[in-house]
Formats: sequence, structure tokens, C-alpha cells
Amino acid sequence: MDPHPSLHELTKLSHTYYERQWMYATAGNLSAREGDVFWITASGKHKGELNEEDFVCVSVADGSLVSARDGLKPSAETSIHQVVYSQLSDVGAALHVHTLDSNLLEFGVGKEEGFRDFPLPPIEIIKAFGIWEEKPNLTFPVFYNHTHVPSIASEIKRYIETKGKPQVPFLLIEGHGPTVWGKSVAEANKHLEAVHFLLQVMARRI
Amino acid sequence: MDPHPSLHELTKLSHTYYERQWMYATAGNLSAREGDVFWITASGKHKGELNEEDFVCVSVADGSLVSARDGLKPSAETSIHQVVYSQLSDVGAALHVHTLDSNLLEFGVGKEEGFRDFPLPPIEIIKAFGIWEEKPNLTFPVFYNHTHVPSIASEIKRYIETKGKPQVPFLLIEGHGPTVWGKSVAEANKHLEAVHFLLQVMARRI
Amino acid sequence: MDPHPSLHELTKLSHTYYERQWMYATAGNLSAREGDVFWITASGKHKGELNEEDFVCVSVADGSLVSARDGLKPSAETSIHQVVYSQLSDVGAALHVHTLDSNLLEFGVGKEEGFRDFPLPPIEIIKAFGIWEEKPNLTFPVFYNHTHVPSIASEIKRYIETKGKPQVPFLLIEGHGPTVWGKSVAEANKHLEAVHFLLQVMARRI
Amino acid sequence: MDPHPSLHELTKLSHTYYERQWMYATAGNLSAREGDVFWITASGKHKGELNEEDFVCVSVADGSLVSARDGLKPSAETSIHQVVYSQLSDVGAALHVHTLDSNLLEFGVGKEEGFRDFPLPPIEIIKAFGIWEEKPNLTFPVFYNHTHVPSIASEIKRYIETKGKPQVPFLLIEGHGPTVWGKSVAEANKHLEAVHFLLQVMARRI
Repeated sequence: MDPHPSLHELTKLSHTYYERQWMYATAGNLSAREGDVFWITASGKHKGELNEEDFVCVSVADGSLVSARDGLKPSAETSIHQVVYSQLSDVGAALHVHTLDSNLLEFGVGKEEGFRDFPLPPIEIIKAFGIWEEKPNLTFPVFYNHTHVPSIASEIKRYIETKGKPQVPFLLIEGHGPTVWGKSVAEANKHLEAVHFLLQVMARRI
Repeated sequence: MDPHPSLHELTKLSHTYYERQWMYATAGNLSAREGDVFWITASGKHKGELNEEDFVCVSVADGSLVSARDGLKPSAETSIHQVVYSQLSDVGAALHVHTLDSNLLEFGVGKEEGFRDFPLPPIEIIKAFGIWEEKPNLTFPVFYNHTHVPSIASEIKRYIETKGKPQVPFLLIEGHGPTVWGKSVAEANKHLEAVHFLLQVMARRI
Repeated sequence: MDPHPSLHELTKLSHTYYERQWMYATAGNLSAREGDVFWITASGKHKGELNEEDFVCVSVADGSLVSARDGLKPSAETSIHQVVYSQLSDVGAALHVHTLDSNLLEFGVGKEEGFRDFPLPPIEIIKAFGIWEEKPNLTFPVFYNHTHVPSIASEIKRYIETKGKPQVPFLLIEGHGPTVWGKSVAEANKHLEAVHFLLQVMARRI
Repeated sequence: MDPHPSLHELTKLSHTYYERQWMYATAGNLSAREGDVFWITASGKHKGELNEEDFVCVSVADGSLVSARDGLKPSAETSIHQVVYSQLSDVGAALHVHTLDSNLLEFGVGKEEGFRDFPLPPIEIIKAFGIWEEKPNLTFPVFYNHTHVPSIASEIKRYIETKGKPQVPFLLIEGHGPTVWGKSVAEANKHLEAVHFLLQVMARRI
């Protein structure tokens, strides 16, 4: 199977995000979908030195490994990408990073509770999500950071099944970082830049 | 119509401002005037990858489109640039960006009120505006962020008609970002760097 | 004696850390072990301009100088690296930097007391240390900043002899900076990036 | 008169400091002494685009202009450099920048009062000044920001005449920025990096 043409874009973003200190200590994972599969960063790679061969191919339907070069394992958080692609059919790329500001915010979502919605400040940058309402009352979902990552993925599935698609193209895992999506890598990147801006405003206003 | 010679300068600034995280998520717009028209960034472009062909030409008198390459639309905030050029005859360039610090500040300007003046800290960097008074009591105007951008432009016009030219070469749209001007692109950039410094001091002292 | 092959990696990290403002004013020191000796940055060098000849070779057993080019002296903090290598047999590299956030934190460890353990926030980035427990109650040791550096080294030895190896691969010298280690330069760098993330969260949440 | 060989170093630092946002909006001035004269940045230059021809030569004795290329004027703050060189005979370079953190700090020095000493946090980075005492009780002088710059220079002269050389190689002009010196450009730069670190700690701890 030929590599996804978006791997060049993802590799470039990986280097940029590392420079921005969003992917320190090998943290984070980036993926792009092509039909029934998606390509995701392999586990444990230095994100400032990633190259196009550091991705593995995974099934959208069940997260099983489709292909990987010798010795490469999918990211430990592959199940989160899988549930995003399988639940949200128009998503073509998903980006998960560890930003400082997302870790400064404390929401207190409980383990049993699993997730809760919180308000977003109604500032201009929200237009990056294609939302043009004046001072909209938007919320975004925050999830408990289960160490067992498939439990986070199950909670995301439960959220979408009970509450529908989030109002904005991202979710936050508390004490961990945001997962952001879009139709294409370029749109997902645009959304992530807006999410970073919003989380900075939230973390520094308080 | 030949492109404005300042487009090279504006393109370079666009890349620099993107690196500074002032134009994330395609935000912001940059323009330069040449006689009766001005050139402004087209809508929806990635500001870190802008090139000199990503500008459209607009009339200073009424904001109508003079020329644009196929598929390019003027920035959604063209009317703000148009009112600045038409009301302030010596302005040759206008720069609008989304900075974090300008979004941390909360002024509470009301929708009906439209605008209100607020004090600037009397620090050294104010000399960048050509103001040499010791510890000057300066104010700058803050505008309500109407989603209908021409309403912001109308309020700017009303401000200038009733109160005159602002004491400093910028205005702030609350929860959105500053619009800064100067005789040339170089002077507008100098002013913007000073405005950024001032807004950082305001946002971080409180 | 041939230079350690890791000196190329350490030199590159030195430039990167200088850019991140972690090694300003010639601060900090980086080392790698090879058997019974370790190579460490010479004293007083500009860390943004370091090259592979700016290291000296020191004995792990007693910290005595094994070899050095003309005029080079080992870092004033060599004894701290020596005690880390001699006490922790699987350590292959140690990195000491001066970060802003580590200097914002005030722990109040007394001179006579020497050291005390403090809790780490249980956020995701802790997985970079190979710790996969959910919301672990981890601590890290903070040491008093004796001007006589061998006194700090003695306290580190006393810590390890009485309390064992720290739970996480780093220690903090109060009002000074963290010392971080790993099996290799790459692992030590990964650990330092996670430590920086944690110390930022601690310094900015309070 | 041939240009001072340090102008290459100063030009490089100017670009670096601009990147660090220490010389925004043409702010700041850098100089190096050679015998009875010193070379200082000309007024009004973009510090990210400075070159070795953008300096003028001034007398240490009285601050009069010795030589300048057509159209170049000495920095408006030349008198501050002149008083530093004439009062402190071992100073070979002086660096004045506008940093955000130095502008966040509010000391309340009065216009009539002219200057007052304030304590420095006794952290490790102070060793960059060649001070090796444990937890030293150091102070640094803060000056009122007279718009008439020669008045600041006079106050600096009065400080040194009445109190002697400052304990540390810098002074701060309130709401403006630090002036830092050293025997050479390299030493002055090392001192400035330590001063920046200290002022950040002071501004962010409160």
C-alpha cells in the first residue's frame, strides 16, 4: 500500500509543532485518513526528527494494524484517532498534541463521570471553526485521562452517541492535551492553531 | 494594474507575524495604499505561506473590488481598512493581527455603546509613535466586536467624526485584535511592534 | 583518548538549549559517560557557540581530570555529574540547565536540611519517564543550593544512600536548575523535555 | 577612523536581540569603546536589519560626535553610554534594550528622587557577574525615566559619585529598560543574559 500523500504535510507539521514545544518528549500523534484506513505516527519517535517512513497504517473500522515497517508500533493513542474517524465520517485528519496551556487548566472531570462540557470564550478566533454567530455560547468536551487509552476512546464514542458531534472540532483530555480534527490536514492544522489560541486565553485569563 | 511595490514587504511581514503567532488559523489582514486604491490580503490564506499574488485591489472611496486574480476574495475585514484609509488621509499601510495579549484584556465595551477610550501605560515605548511628552496621559479606542464587520467600520467612522483621529496610531477590537497604521509599511510595522509591547504590559501587569 | 561519540549530540543539544534560553550567560553543563570516564562541557563557554572540542574527560570514580585540551577546565559543577554517574550505574548522560520556571518555584529547603521531596503533578507527560500508573503520587527531590558545589554532590550521595534512587530521573537544585539523566543522551533529552514541561506547569499553576 | 572591530559582534547581537523581542520598534542601543571614543548605533534604525555601517563614533570625554556617515545621528540615549564609559574606566561595551519583563516591574521611583536601590533575588545566575558569595544580599539601582535623557545621565553620574560603582554590572531605567555593561562585548552580552533572567524572575514571581 502506497503511503498517504498527506504524510509529507504531517511530517512538516510534526517538526513545526516540536519547535512550538507542543510535542516534547516524543509526545503527541498525528494522522490522516484515506478511505478505510488511516496513517498515524509510530510510537516513541522524536517528533522534531520524524520522517515520512515513521508512520503505520491502521484500519478505520476496528483499529487493527494494516501495515508497518519493521519494528514500528502504532502510537499508544491510536484508539482515539480510530474512534474519531469511525464516528465522524467527514474527518480526514486528526492532530493530538501536549501543550502547556492545556495542562494548566484544571476541570476536575471525574473518572466515573468520564466527560463534561465546558464553555469556550466567545472571541473572534472561533470563526476559524466556520462559526459566524455573534458571541456564541459554545461548549467543548473535556475527558478524564484514563491510563488505559481505549477507555478514553470508549468515552468519546459514548459522548458522540449520546450528545452528538461536538460543537467545535476538538476535544480535550484533562492534564494531557487536545485532539483536533478537520476535513484535511490543512484544515485540522487551522483548527489546532485556533484551539491553541483559545486554550491560552482560558489558561491565562484566570 | 501593477501590484503595489509594498506587497513584497507585506508578504515578508506576514511570514514574520505568523512565526510570532500573531496570524494563526489564517487570522489577520495586511494592506498598503497606492493613491485611490489599496491592496489587501485575500480571504482565508495561510499567513505563513502567503505570496505576493495573494492580494486583491480595492477602492479607497467605497471598498469596491478593483481587481483580483481568479477565485480570490478580499479579506472579510476589508471595510475596516477602507474606513481607515478614507478617514485618515496620510495612512499608507494598515496591519491587523490577532495577538494573545490583546485577547486576554477584557474591557466590557457594550454593543450599543460601540466604543470607549482606555488609558495607555506611559512607558518608554510610546516614543515609537513620535510622542515625546514625559509620562503622557494617552488613551486608545476599544471597539465592540460586531460580527457584521461593516458595523465596526461604521463605528470607527463615527469615532473619528466625533472625537477626531485617535491619539495613537491604532485601535483595538475587543476579543479580536489591534488594527495599526502608519505612513508606510515600515512605519506601520514599527507602530505594531510598540502596540504589541504595550498590550503585553497591560495584559500581564493586571 | 578518543572523544566520546556522544559529543556531537551534546554539542547539538547545547545549541538547542541555548536557543530555548535554558543555558543563558554560559550557564549549565552537559555530559556523557563512557565506561569509567565521562566527558563534560568545559567551564565558562558560551553554550550557543559550543563545539566538540569544548569538553574535558573526567574519572567517574573520583572526579579527577583524565584529559583536557590546553586551558580548558571542567565545569564548576562536575562533582554533581560525578556523583550521579557513580551512584546510578545505568546512567549514560546527564544534563543540567537553568530554566526560568525552575527559578520561579520557591520550596524553602534549608541549608542544614539539605534536601526534601516535593510532589509532582500527575499529568500525562510523566509517561515519558516510563511510568504508566494512573495519577501516580510521585515526588522529586529538591536540594539546597550550596555555593560550595561538592556540598550539593555530598547531599545527593546522602539522598541516594538513605532514600534510594529518586522516583523520577531528575533532581532540582533550588534557585538554580534541574539535573536530569538517562541511559543515553537521547533518553536524557527526552526526560529533560518532560521535566521542563512539569516545572512549567508547577510554576504557572500557582 | 577605522570602525571598531567589535561592530561585527554588536551587529550580530542586534539581530539576535531583535529576534528575542528586546529591540522592537527600533528601540535600544548598543555600543563598544575603543580608547577615547565609542561606537554606538545610529538613531531610528530597525534593529533586525542593522549593519556595520549603522554606527556613529562619539567622544567618551564629552559625548560630542567624532564621525558619522551622511545622515546618521547618534542614538537619542548616547549620553547614558557616555556617562557609563566616562565613570567606569574598565567598561568596554554597553547594551541597552527594552524587555517586556523590565517594563512589568513597577518600583515607583520619583522624579525628584532620581534613583533608588532595590534587592536582587539571590539565585544561581548571579554567578555570571563573578559574584560567588552564598545567597548574597545584592541591590541594583533603578532610575526615573526622564524624557530629557541627559537628566538620566546626570543622575547616573550622581549615583556613582555618591554611592560608588553599582554592585552588579547594570542599572534599570523604570518603565524603559536595563543598561548593562562589561569589559568586552562578549562579557556585556553574558551579563545581559543574566540580567534578563533575573528581571524575568522578579516580574513573574510577584
